[in-house]
Amino acid sequence: MDNCLGYQCSICHQEYDISDSLYTCRKDGGNLDIFLDVGCLRKNFIPEDILFTQENSIWRYLPLLPVKDPGQFATPFRSVGCTPIYQPKQLVADLSLENLWIKDESKNPTASLKDRASALVVAKAMELNKETIVTASTGNAGAALAGMAAAVNCRAVIFAPKTAPIAKIAQLLVFGASVYLVDGTYDDAFELSIEVSNEFGWYCRNTGYNPYTVEGKKTISFELWEYFHRHPTFKKPEIRWNILVSVGDGNIISGIHKGFMDLIDLGWLAQPPRLFGVQAEGSASISNAFFANNTDIKPVVAKTIADSISVDLPRDGFRALRSIRESQGQAIVVSDKEILQSIASLGKVGIFSEPAGAAAYAGLIKALANGFIQEDEFVIVINTGSGLKDINAAIQSVPKAPIIEPTLNAFKKVVKL
Amino acid sequence: MDNCLGYQCSICHQEYDISDSLYTCRKDGGNLDIFLDVGCLRKNFIPEDILFTQENSIWRYLPLLPVKDPGQFATPFRSVGCTPIYQPKQLVADLSLENLWIKDESKNPTASLKDRASALVVAKAMELNKETIVTASTGNAGAALAGMAAAVNCRAVIFAPKTAPIAKIAQLLVFGASVYLVDGTYDDAFELSIEVSNEFGWYCRNTGYNPYTVEGKKTISFELWEYFHRHPTFKKPEIRWNILVSVGDGNIISGIHKGFMDLIDLGWLAQPPRLFGVQAEGSASISNAFFANNTDIKPVVAKTIADSISVDLPRDGFRALRSIRESQGQAIVVSDKEILQSIASLGKVGIFSEPAGAAAYAGLIKALANGFIQEDEFVIVINTGSGLKDINAAIQSVPKAPIIEPTLNAFKKVVKL
Repeated sequence: MDNCLGYQCSICHQEYDISDSLYTCRKDGGNLDIFLDVGCLRKNFIPEDILFTQENSIWRYLPLLPVKDPGQFATPFRSVGCTPIYQPKQLVADLSLENLWIKDESKNPTASLKDRASALVVAKAMELNKETIVTASTGNAGAALAGMAAAVNCRAVIFAPKTAPIAKIAQLLVFGASVYLVDGTYDDAFELSIEVSNEFGWYCRNTGYNPYTVEGKKTISFELWEYFHRHPTFKKPEIRWNILVSVGDGNIISGIHKGFMDLIDLGWLAQPPRLFGVQAEGSASISNAFFANNTDIKPVVAKTIADSISVDLPRDGFRALRSIRESQGQAIVVSDKEILQSIASLGKVGIFSEPAGAAAYAGLIKALANGFIQEDEFVIVINTGSGLKDINAAIQSVPKAPIIEPTLNAFKKVVKL
Repeated sequence: MDNCLGYQCSICHQEYDISDSLYTCRKDGGNLDIFLDVGCLRKNFIPEDILFTQENSIWRYLPLLPVKDPGQFATPFRSVGCTPIYQPKQLVADLSLENLWIKDESKNPTASLKDRASALVVAKAMELNKETIVTASTGNAGAALAGMAAAVNCRAVIFAPKTAPIAKIAQLLVFGASVYLVDGTYDDAFELSIEVSNEFGWYCRNTGYNPYTVEGKKTISFELWEYFHRHPTFKKPEIRWNILVSVGDGNIISGIHKGFMDLIDLGWLAQPPRLFGVQAEGSASISNAFFANNTDIKPVVAKTIADSISVDLPRDGFRALRSIRESQGQAIVVSDKEILQSIASLGKVGIFSEPAGAAAYAGLIKALANGFIQEDEFVIVINTGSGLKDINAAIQSVPKAPIIEPTLNAFKKVVKL
């Protein structure tokens, strides 16, 4: 590759050449960071090269991505990213927070942020002439891989625990993925997918295991940087910028951090925003380590309504902790009740979020209450996926509708004006 | 309004001034067409005024819409439209149809084309200082109104039959709409919503009844025109352009037709594409009238898996028939089985469609088989909404996934390479 130099283990800092097709560190199994050839990029690019491109997807950032141009124009694969950013007046008023934005990732092709990671992995697979990509997942990551692979006519093989809800499996099957339900846990599916990948030479997408997932997810930071690039206060060092995002495996927050660090390395950004990692009470292993002030993440038996962030053993916990600490952010824990309330709060401004997306907003309310964020600061909340993916949670977040006779009189009796 | 002159009844051609706040014709109850002040627009605009605007939503076409600039920047309301258009190579190959595009309306804020109509209605309501908008709906139209109203802090009141699936109702409630389930049919809900609108002075969004729904839906034609504007063959009169779209109430196809007729009136387009209205066998009242070669649409007792186009009495059938006939198109009827097969066909290229969206693709296969469309023609299929809205239909479209022990050997026994 021309624009990147190699991998570096996030734990022991061992370096590997980019031509060395690796998933994790050979020494300690640590997740690998890819580092850009910053010197070369600085020489050849200025921000305006990107700010004025016509491409309306993550592929506008191709110079900063560790893959070759994958082509595939006019497909869902080429449409990932460039999601809308909203500034809902009612929430601004409710929270007395003048500079609040919501980045809505539900507008990605398969309706979650995970498309960013899957698109990069699929691009890398094409480059490596791998026709089959395998992953363990029941949720957004699997749907994203299935959708992105379908769009470019690659084969996706997905292992999910047999207890996965049929609605989640349906989306994988509609995208034509080969789905195998394993009689075991998600961890069993994860291990099997790696075995299968090794045995058949298939490319493995597993979150945190494959170094390209973070490289895809970092594009959301590029979009935020680009959106705010012209904002008059963006470059003032006295203004604090805060990003709140839900954390399960820890791969998304690691991707966001990587994106901002790339921009800083390039000299295109002065300081990174503070990153707030929001976890559900019932799945808080990374937060537990944060609060205990150590790097050792102990698995939990996860139980939360926010299934996208319901994780026993986080696959990218080490880097997630690093992202929060290096950016001077915070870990925040919210209850399922607070998550459900936040689904309704976002719904009332026209944003239908999955529970994990709402968790980030619940985290903001807590961060304000705890004084971690002040009212004059800038805040971006990431909605990671669509509420349509989890209608059961949505139902629990709202009161029932009354049943009436179809007459004006019956309506007049119940209506509150 | 500056850019439009008035309403005209689609049946008796009675004209009304645009300042006359009307829903339907006073003489015969016919649906009203809004006509633009073409002379004034021709004098003041050229296509390039629109082609080079930065706005990435339907509001880029504001000069051609019968409402004032509604503002509301950085909200889902301001993000409607500018949906992606795909050209899936595998489908091109499968159908030997080199010039096939899919316009994916599932990327709208509430995941269906109906957002276009609801956005216009909400804009008109704001202009009229109406704080409450009422509609009858169980599906996409209700969700779109609820979402668009929430985004601008308007109140939405929605009447749905009590038999509506809870998942559909959940989306309305999350958007904060006031939902009333009536102990009756959709027709009962429709009539009650009009009574309530009259009694309380609330603005009524009902599809086909409110003349602004078509004005919103016409924006999809503007986007197609703009997309193909630079295509070398677009202006060659010998190339036939065909658009396939599913038809329930008939309001979408009427909107598409209105958009192209506006462009022709402006002198910005030479001839309209042929419009193919695709209906489900179990809900084919408009097609029945088309095949019988008359304008009298007899209600049916609708039964189809494609619930967005499951309609007993179409509320915009007269104009739908007019759209098909004036554009020299065809009515096409497809079975539920063909619809399910098409969900899988679109899924395999990464497009997760609702059954009604897949119906349009099923219609294309039939149109090719019947010789209505030739392989050298240009074809655009509209996917009207997201498959995530109807997971039950999706499940029926695909085979089940096998269950295996989480071991490499177990996998090897079942995998087909």
